[in-house]
Amino acid sequence: MKQSDFGTARGTGELGLLGEIRRRAERLGGPGLRLGIGDDCALLTLRRGEELAVTTDLSIAGGHFHLDWHPPEAVGHRALARGLSDLAAMGARPVAAFLSLGLPRSLTTAASRSRVWVERFLDGLLALAELHSTPLAGGDLAESPVAVADIVLAGAVPRGRALLRSGAKAGDLLYVTGALGGAAAGLARLGELADAQPGHPNPLRIPKKLEALLAPHLYPQPRIAQGLWLQRRGLASAALDLSDGLSTDLAHLCEESGVAAEVDAGRLPLGLGATLAQALDGGEDYELLFAAPSAARLPRAIAGVPVTRIGRVKRARAGRPAVTLLTEQGAQTLEAGGWEHFR
Amino acid sequence: MKQSDFGTARGTGELGLLGEIRRRAERLGGPGLRLGIGDDCALLTLRRGEELAVTTDLSIAGGHFHLDWHPPEAVGHRALARGLSDLAAMGARPVAAFLSLGLPRSLTTAASRSRVWVERFLDGLLALAELHSTPLAGGDLAESPVAVADIVLAGAVPRGRALLRSGAKAGDLLYVTGALGGAAAGLARLGELADAQPGHPNPLRIPKKLEALLAPHLYPQPRIAQGLWLQRRGLASAALDLSDGLSTDLAHLCEESGVAAEVDAGRLPLGLGATLAQALDGGEDYELLFAAPSAARLPRAIAGVPVTRIGRVKRARAGRPAVTLLTEQGAQTLEAGGWEHFR
Repeated sequence: MKQSDFGTARGTGELGLLGEIRRRAERLGGPGLRLGIGDDCALLTLRRGEELAVTTDLSIAGGHFHLDWHPPEAVGHRALARGLSDLAAMGARPVAAFLSLGLPRSLTTAASRSRVWVERFLDGLLALAELHSTPLAGGDLAESPVAVADIVLAGAVPRGRALLRSGAKAGDLLYVTGALGGAAAGLARLGELADAQPGHPNPLRIPKKLEALLAPHLYPQPRIAQGLWLQRRGLASAALDLSDGLSTDLAHLCEESGVAAEVDAGRLPLGLGATLAQALDGGEDYELLFAAPSAARLPRAIAGVPVTRIGRVKRARAGRPAVTLLTEQGAQTLEAGGWEHFR
Repeated sequence: MKQSDFGTARGTGELGLLGEIRRRAERLGGPGLRLGIGDDCALLTLRRGEELAVTTDLSIAGGHFHLDWHPPEAVGHRALARGLSDLAAMGARPVAAFLSLGLPRSLTTAASRSRVWVERFLDGLLALAELHSTPLAGGDLAESPVAVADIVLAGAVPRGRALLRSGAKAGDLLYVTGALGGAAAGLARLGELADAQPGHPNPLRIPKKLEALLAPHLYPQPRIAQGLWLQRRGLASAALDLSDGLSTDLAHLCEESGVAAEVDAGRLPLGLGATLAQALDGGEDYELLFAAPSAARLPRAIAGVPVTRIGRVKRARAGRPAVTLLTEQGAQTLEAGGWEHFR
């Protein structure tokens, strides 16, 4: 039931599953992890002069993922990617991850000879964790009528050096890493695939030829290396990650910084198969959006990922829109069009 | 959707609720909280020589609480109490809490003139947070078919001084704080109350005269002060909190320490209305169970909460039960009888 119960490996049921998670998690340690799964809390150690960055991200079946669409590996990957992306946006290095998992019984028992859903979920989560040297340090497990995964990431950043949302200034230029809208385009294609196959296998089998198109949605890559690069060089005045969509997230940045912004539609780097609308409102790209002084010299790519200038920061004025989109047809207000729960 | 979205206070729906949470959370700061709700991550600072303790606890409607039984304030209190109790068991001081909340829409809108469920939930959670000087530093919010609350606690403890489960040695004595079984007795009484009132108001109204009996279940008190006291004096060789029940949790302690244990049934401090079975297997008392060398001098109470010696640590022997219960009828094996999911 609680954190510590990840620690007991015996028997069937919860304790058996917890034991499995513990065994698999213990293969991946980390320099900041003093005590992992097995006690009331995990213990983490920071280096001298560092402070701790913490983020939590809740994923719920039917909202953030669909059990009959998404490969379990992708559900695990995406859950962790959301948290890692928040660390990237602060310029923090990952120290440890925690996973609170609520699962229907059907996902913890094998219906056939196939691997159990939760094992495949862990495959995806732990593969990404290993890629970013992030040990799974604890969590919780409970039976639930609906599958829920809350992922917690703890990271470290030199004190006072974190990339915040609140530092953008009029005159700064706006940049994004990678490409935008690819996740939304992939999700749309995944939905079409499901609709075209009534009674499809559960989860959907992804045809080989669609893997590249679906990858930005199924396996987004958190920009840890890029966030660290920006933090270490002190080049960004503000940053966040694009989880809800450029239109929504840029509005967040403007609000926290007390500024306005202008985006050049023609400059937006569109992801594979993505429309402009998907790039603006799609969300879940997990690229970094950041501001930097106009004098800052940004490279064309950071750690192999392209960096594109997409607009500029302006002074906020009462009665004027926070975010303006410049197109060939002129300037228009960019309304926050991303996802919002309870709307 | 993500941590940072707690940061945007405007409009209706998610952003409105997040704004409400942010406003209420900002009233309570803390010395270790450098940056709270409003960015991609919260930033926490430890004192020199400290390390970080982290725990997560998932509460799900229908399992950990019942929407038609439990006052929303109690659901919020209990969610936070579970996490604080894990910090107490490590001897850590609370630094910050995080809350990932998945809610059906019905719990975020008022059906009548009554306060909305989620506001009352926050009342309970934040009142306990204030009592333990624990700022709510972030979290996540999502719509969910079932109410889920994952609580994350970050605490601090001088490096190498945390109370672990793994240090108990043969010859040590076993102690508990407070009383046992009161939470189980209260839960049983709550169920009777619901059964006796078909079509009762939702949630149940608790009669004044039952408040004392139900308090250990509805409003358990995490033993932060007692855990800190033990940690600072270095008196405990091992400790954990009683969340699953003495029989289960003592087995955990024995397993992690590689020892066996003997409990004197006649010495167990029974909670109000509790039976021996409830004290052994009931769970959710959130008292501390700890071992200390027989030479250690423990007071009768720590910070106003009684401390009772209940047994002793023995050498583990192959083929012998890990935990033995001594009663007037003699010795019997104490099987782990606490709660387990997926059983």
